[in-house]
Amino acid sequence: MTKEIKMPTEETLDPEDWESVRALGRRMLDDMMDYMRTLRERPAWRHAPDKVKAHFSKPLPYDPQPQEEIYDEFLEYVLPYPVGNLHPSFWGWVMGTGTVFGALAELLAASMNTNTGGGAYHSANYVEKQVIDWTKEMLGYPASASGLLTSGCSAANLIGLGVARNTKAGYDLRSEGIQVAPQKMVLYASNEIHTSVHKAVELLGLGRDALRLVPVNDIYQIDLNALQTAIAKDRQDGHLPFCVVGAAGTTNTGAIDDLSALADICQEEGLWLHVDGAFGAWAALVPDARHLVDGMERADSLALDLHKWMYMPCEIGCILVRSEDDHRKAFSLTPAYLSHGEVGRGLAGSDLPWFSDYGFQLSRGFRALKAWMSIKEHGASKYGRLIQQNIDQARYLGELIDAAPELELAAPVTLNVVCFRYTRAGLDDTALDELNKQIEVELQERGIAVPSVTTIRGRCVLHVAITNHRSRREDFDVLVREAIRIGKEMDQSRDSATE
Amino acid sequence: MTKEIKMPTEETLDPEDWESVRALGRRMLDDMMDYMRTLRERPAWRHAPDKVKAHFSKPLPYDPQPQEEIYDEFLEYVLPYPVGNLHPSFWGWVMGTGTVFGALAELLAASMNTNTGGGAYHSANYVEKQVIDWTKEMLGYPASASGLLTSGCSAANLIGLGVARNTKAGYDLRSEGIQVAPQKMVLYASNEIHTSVHKAVELLGLGRDALRLVPVNDIYQIDLNALQTAIAKDRQDGHLPFCVVGAAGTTNTGAIDDLSALADICQEEGLWLHVDGAFGAWAALVPDARHLVDGMERADSLALDLHKWMYMPCEIGCILVRSEDDHRKAFSLTPAYLSHGEVGRGLAGSDLPWFSDYGFQLSRGFRALKAWMSIKEHGASKYGRLIQQNIDQARYLGELIDAAPELELAAPVTLNVVCFRYTRAGLDDTALDELNKQIEVELQERGIAVPSVTTIRGRCVLHVAITNHRSRREDFDVLVREAIRIGKEMDQSRDSATE
Repeated sequence: MTKEIKMPTEETLDPEDWESVRALGRRMLDDMMDYMRTLRERPAWRHAPDKVKAHFSKPLPYDPQPQEEIYDEFLEYVLPYPVGNLHPSFWGWVMGTGTVFGALAELLAASMNTNTGGGAYHSANYVEKQVIDWTKEMLGYPASASGLLTSGCSAANLIGLGVARNTKAGYDLRSEGIQVAPQKMVLYASNEIHTSVHKAVELLGLGRDALRLVPVNDIYQIDLNALQTAIAKDRQDGHLPFCVVGAAGTTNTGAIDDLSALADICQEEGLWLHVDGAFGAWAALVPDARHLVDGMERADSLALDLHKWMYMPCEIGCILVRSEDDHRKAFSLTPAYLSHGEVGRGLAGSDLPWFSDYGFQLSRGFRALKAWMSIKEHGASKYGRLIQQNIDQARYLGELIDAAPELELAAPVTLNVVCFRYTRAGLDDTALDELNKQIEVELQERGIAVPSVTTIRGRCVLHVAITNHRSRREDFDVLVREAIRIGKEMDQSRDSATE
Repeated sequence: MTKEIKMPTEETLDPEDWESVRALGRRMLDDMMDYMRTLRERPAWRHAPDKVKAHFSKPLPYDPQPQEEIYDEFLEYVLPYPVGNLHPSFWGWVMGTGTVFGALAELLAASMNTNTGGGAYHSANYVEKQVIDWTKEMLGYPASASGLLTSGCSAANLIGLGVARNTKAGYDLRSEGIQVAPQKMVLYASNEIHTSVHKAVELLGLGRDALRLVPVNDIYQIDLNALQTAIAKDRQDGHLPFCVVGAAGTTNTGAIDDLSALADICQEEGLWLHVDGAFGAWAALVPDARHLVDGMERADSLALDLHKWMYMPCEIGCILVRSEDDHRKAFSLTPAYLSHGEVGRGLAGSDLPWFSDYGFQLSRGFRALKAWMSIKEHGASKYGRLIQQNIDQARYLGELIDAAPELELAAPVTLNVVCFRYTRAGLDDTALDELNKQIEVELQERGIAVPSVTTIRGRCVLHVAITNHRSRREDFDVLVREAIRIGKEMDQSRDSATE
């Protein structure tokens, strides 16, 4: 049957010498272990020098380079200059920390390189389903909900709001698009809601204007009266309110909206409740904080990250949707070349739904593995204790700030985010804005700590979000001491400059 | 300054005993090396037995479990049952293979756990920029274009079409949404275009109806006359044609649209040209195949994967956009807590644009590292040879099928995809559809090879997409021999059943 065709010498990307790769792999493993073990001995951040930038301007290589050389370049130019979110004193923006076992899990997942977009009777599907089931249980979300692991909460918000849009449109929006909508579809969130919600609304074609930004109360929760007024006004104007986005942990202050009240309003008004719980959703794991997210379990969709306050290596988020049917209807699309579910045997069978039917990704990696291994490694209780520890650390930092005359809190500490400001009588707000920005930069450049800055009530403040399992109370002592020291130093050099 | 607060004993997720984790890591590394080295000795696919599914139904663990035990569970229940896309005889759908060095790179990336959504003066930004620059060079795309690494081509298509939509709307669609569009925005692609384009159009709120599916010619390229007729008709009907999506490698047959002709049409008509080049774009790396993607360099946006025909571990794709300005305008959104670019020092500086300004993800992992290390490991020329090798293997398989009286090609072999069908005089098409589906299932269940099936001109056919650096010609000999053997076997058992 086979014709006589000259067989060429076929190449592969597999190693010619497996033992030398194995030896290099061991070296890498040892180095990574040492790197993670000794984080505390290194600066919180190091500004990459110009030679690093220059190194990555070299032309495309056409010829192979020995693996050892590439790894040496990694050691010299890449490893020493991370963003730094794994360091004990990194609290900028809201990022996670990662773990050693999580990193090992990524090695396993990449070695298997299993594509989890579809297919039946393969292990990764079961692992992902279990991780989603465990996530629902940890968060107190209904066991009957459907879910999908995502690249992060941005993608999870996009998917959740996509389901909300399609479900609440009142016509076949998926086919006909938004243009034929008889009424303008509008949704609501506090003006402290995360930018990924803005971006999702824009990408979904609803227009940024459709997202009604409602003012917040004194503790940065969405103002419920203002929300109800806004809904009533939109109805009067002939628009179609379809969704409220609740925040479980805002980036700016860690505020958690009154989710029970939002659930009540949504129920009365017939609106979809989507909760952006990127990190704050995990308060559900903490006995003393669980009440803060009461009502979250009533959300129609819930977006969250596991790479922030569950400390797993980036990227891993999750979208949960109360109605599996709504979820699937918004995303399932099965072309001929993906036909599945027809037989009980073969890789195209269907003992479980195909995950690609629940989101926009078709090819998908095996991000579930690191979650599965991590949850088993620590158990849900330890995660709860670590989250409590971060909350306690935020309170501790708040007390340090309260006790320091040079500093003032810029917002109440309700969860794990602390916003504060260096201040001095006689300096106006503009000068203080600049001074606090300088303090941030100097704390970073000197490798002491990484806070970020944000704007609270129009003023630039230092922003510390604690989603870090390596931080200790002493690290916050250093932060406060050095923020004051640098503040005074900058203040004085400012005075000298203006003299 | 620090108040006297009782210091609790603080916990961490770091190991208590680093040496035992290191030892386990070494064991993992050794096992993964052995696993990848011995792939060929194992079946192409193994149907996970019921005990595997049962294992992943256990309740949420609250207490920690020893790492060694977790790893043993991985070895027993996870590793033996992958989808299988790393196996030499896996050619189902279109998936990539992964490499050893790529898997090690994932260990390094997860250990650094650097968040690449933003920040300045850290190494990952430079690495990603270099990978994008190299990708542009390999594909012959303009060096001035902007780019972003994505989870895959689904996300890349979504971003590219999002930029097209916003740029071509003629008003501020990002703010005002689609509903106020004065004309229905419509776009065009062949009816062989990938489902991720359908999904993107739906998610973008344009409505599935807005995607005009144009018939294909004999070699499955978009019919240019039909395209022009469709555009003219839409203009007559008062609609706004804004984009053509060209395919560089369709999933079904590997067909590449006449991209130069599409670029001409788009230029004349003032339309955006988006190219879905998931795997086919990489024909640009092959001297003998480069002409197939002529015109791709004129696309306004180009979406592609590196985890398919560049054989990298999943997930990694890329979107390139000719106009950096259009790209940024569609996605940049900088809230106070992400303010950047104002100073030349500190992590919130801006020596490079922030990648989160070019897509919908804010937190982003360090997927660039595996690409950077892989491209250096092999060099662009070797990738070109490997892609050529897969094309040659597809031709070889086509010749084997031509030579076998029991088999017939279902579509011309133009790139790396082969569609064929077992056939026997006297069996009607419905019976043959069922028989070919059975052949697929048996080839998989017996662990011989993994083709998938698809529908070509209404008929079920076997589908072999070769994006596999481990395949050898002898593997295709086995595929053809066994497909025939199983076909006869099934055919006979079918006869016995109907006797």
